[in-house]
Amino acid sequence: MKILSFKLNGEVKFGPKVKKEEAVWDVLKIQEELNVLPSFPENIIDGVALGFDFVEKIRKLVEAAKESDQVEKYKHVFTTIEWLSPIPRTPKNIICVGKNYDAHVKEMGGEVAPKDLVVFTKAPTTIAADEQVLPIHASKTASLDYEGELAIVIGKRGKEIPKNQAIDYIFGYTIANDITARDLQDRHVQYFIGKSLEGTCPMGPYIVSKDEIPDPQNLSLVTKVNGEVRQNGSTKDMLFTVENLISILSQYITLEPGDVILTGTPSGVGKGMTPPVFLQSGDEVKVSIEGIGTLSNRFE
Amino acid sequence: MKILSFKLNGEVKFGPKVKKEEAVWDVLKIQEELNVLPSFPENIIDGVALGFDFVEKIRKLVEAAKESDQVEKYKHVFTTIEWLSPIPRTPKNIICVGKNYDAHVKEMGGEVAPKDLVVFTKAPTTIAADEQVLPIHASKTASLDYEGELAIVIGKRGKEIPKNQAIDYIFGYTIANDITARDLQDRHVQYFIGKSLEGTCPMGPYIVSKDEIPDPQNLSLVTKVNGEVRQNGSTKDMLFTVENLISILSQYITLEPGDVILTGTPSGVGKGMTPPVFLQSGDEVKVSIEGIGTLSNRFE
Repeated sequence: MKILSFKLNGEVKFGPKVKKEEAVWDVLKIQEELNVLPSFPENIIDGVALGFDFVEKIRKLVEAAKESDQVEKYKHVFTTIEWLSPIPRTPKNIICVGKNYDAHVKEMGGEVAPKDLVVFTKAPTTIAADEQVLPIHASKTASLDYEGELAIVIGKRGKEIPKNQAIDYIFGYTIANDITARDLQDRHVQYFIGKSLEGTCPMGPYIVSKDEIPDPQNLSLVTKVNGEVRQNGSTKDMLFTVENLISILSQYITLEPGDVILTGTPSGVGKGMTPPVFLQSGDEVKVSIEGIGTLSNRFE
Repeated sequence: MKILSFKLNGEVKFGPKVKKEEAVWDVLKIQEELNVLPSFPENIIDGVALGFDFVEKIRKLVEAAKESDQVEKYKHVFTTIEWLSPIPRTPKNIICVGKNYDAHVKEMGGEVAPKDLVVFTKAPTTIAADEQVLPIHASKTASLDYEGELAIVIGKRGKEIPKNQAIDYIFGYTIANDITARDLQDRHVQYFIGKSLEGTCPMGPYIVSKDEIPDPQNLSLVTKVNGEVRQNGSTKDMLFTVENLISILSQYITLEPGDVILTGTPSGVGKGMTPPVFLQSGDEVKVSIEGIGTLSNRFE
């Protein structure tokens, strides 16, 4: 199931994409008016915390709407809603893994991939939506760069998770662009500042529940800037797999429903080009991941 | 005013210390039963977002309780409550400044202090209370170390804050111990993992509202381990002052009410000793800052 978050009349809502239509089911409204289920979460984080039950509850609501005599009332065409990041606000900073693709380590000037995970964070105030126009931050950085990444959405609180149980803790996947101010990243040594300018973590368009992604280690990932292919990778080249990442991270950090883990970027970032090419006002970046969709943002 | 957070019968509450008594005023109960104010925040983050109005509202509630005929009903003796960190959960990761005291830079093997701020974060799942017994994490680290620090509690959303307005964005101050797994900090290069083990950010006992700390750059800071003085510093030795930190950070990161900024630690950490001495099960660490109080934790 593909689930999105949106704003309508000032309210933050969520719902599944309507099949074969460019529209979303307003599941909160269905539940409120048709009172289908004994209970239903009011926000998407409480939703993903239910795991696959969330998907099943949503299905029941959609069925009820279809059987009602006012089916159109419960759908909103995409052009009438304001899109949000599928998780509009993470419960802690976004957890990011660096240097997780060998070819990217090399293009950044590294000799060998690190033996131990490199983990940093982005403030949740960086979160932005698909199609949102993002600030180029010209007064703060001269080297804004893209990083297309597969993002894991955690559905279950956990610590010290064994590798063979890691998938149980995932609700689904989305796409993220870990936009980075390279000059600030270098100058401040620890990455946090260079990774936390406002609007530098667009995510979306959907969370795809994990049942639709049976093998997260075999997805193509393509990033285009103004239509030109810059990153053309596959998640099979991750140095630490999705299972490994969750298992290792949870040895040290308590994971919670709604947490988002960015799994690192393949080669092809602007800094890795000769000479380096950074984002300019007017540029459009599209990150596509097989089975999830395309995340598009223009900079201004 | 000294404000603390606590748990009573499963409910998270907050209130000011009762003057000359080891007790807290239950301001939420006063408001609920005596209906003194047209409105009053239900959690401490909405409270600090009101700035000094929060202090004034609390004063009115305490006055009303004193004038009621059931004054004892609105106080809880400290031994009957479960203490929490004054901000039990920050809205984003705790923002931490590294290398902000020259003598600490040198004891850690650095030659010169960095020209640009070194900023990293701790997950909010690290937050713990005063007097809470903390895990020693023996299976994960052999080098757990303390760092006594002045913590700023932000009261107002802001970005690009000029230095001369920085104080307006502060609600108050508390004490933090930025407990660090030195081996993990080194091994993972980026500090996040080594800084984010559960229970490694005790804070408290109180937030002291900023009117009681007219000069945050002239506070003594003393850390003792089992009674022995290890850190004996002063906030006057900060390389980046409180005003500078807020102004610089807010150029890059949006600050929000309830955000906590740890301002760095003076010299005297365990890693700086010859030979290094790390925390052991049974150790008790006390961090005292002038005008705020003492934060005490035992490790087990």
